[in-house]
Amino acid sequence: MKTFSLAVAAVSLVAALALGTASSKNPAPATAQTLRQLEADFMNAASTRGADGFMSYYSEDAVELPNGEDALKGKPAIFKTMAFLNNKDNHLSWTPTFADISASGDLGYTYGTYEFRSRDKDGKSIVSYGKYTTIWRKQKDGSWKVVLDMGNDSPTPK
Amino acid sequence: MKTFSLAVAAVSLVAALALGTASSKNPAPATAQTLRQLEADFMNAASTRGADGFMSYYSEDAVELPNGEDALKGKPAIFKTMAFLNNKDNHLSWTPTFADISASGDLGYTYGTYEFRSRDKDGKSIVSYGKYTTIWRKQKDGSWKVVLDMGNDSPTPK
Repeated sequence: MKTFSLAVAAVSLVAALALGTASSKNPAPATAQTLRQLEADFMNAASTRGADGFMSYYSEDAVELPNGEDALKGKPAIFKTMAFLNNKDNHLSWTPTFADISASGDLGYTYGTYEFRSRDKDGKSIVSYGKYTTIWRKQKDGSWKVVLDMGNDSPTPK
Repeated sequence: MKTFSLAVAAVSLVAALALGTASSKNPAPATAQTLRQLEADFMNAASTRGADGFMSYYSEDAVELPNGEDALKGKPAIFKTMAFLNNKDNHLSWTPTFADISASGDLGYTYGTYEFRSRDKDGKSIVSYGKYTTIWRKQKDGSWKVVLDMGNDSPTPK
């Protein structure tokens, strides 16, 4: 019986290590819901802190694929194009339609729709609509950051 | 020594099972290079077999996010928009810039650039340029399929 107990104990230990879920730092593994919550926090940061808040969710090596423009590689290049978020007339909001994550909980994505509300030259309210895909990657420090973001246009909803 | 050997054998067995790498069906775990090869095969299928070849790389529940249009959900809805690939004047080609995959080897993505060569009403050659993001997911049968594809426009390269 001792032989059996030792084997069971060793097996249990290795199984726990191999499954990698016993970290006290991150007791709950990330799920699709983690990404939905991140997107809500991300949008709130952009809304309250403009470009700085928006960019705080981007990884250093992130890539932005803007419609009509070439790819922007790296946080500094992307940041330069986000000053419009500091204009109080501009409101960017988005809604994830779907979120999914890898079994290992280190890579995930969302896609959804966005609305961009602004004002034209005459101060009249204007709205444009689009879709987006955002890819999230867990960083070495355990935080989640956007590693890729892409948008394109949608028709005005009926 | 017999106790020790039994424990080691049991531990090794469980470790192999937990790591999940001991499948004779899939001896090599998927890597970013797997996705680059998939994209080459995918493009070849579209080039030689048109819409049928292109769609053979899509999962049943795939989503297409076309520029200027609403999201298309599910393979049948996407297939309807791909008949242009059967026109011998149309040539869609793409080049992945980057590929990455989750630690668990079940979810990955690529992004890159595409070229679409066609002819206008007068038969004159025309080219349009763009970028894309493709998200790949390993299916239950072990094959990899596109679960999301999104494109947008790029300027004409200088």
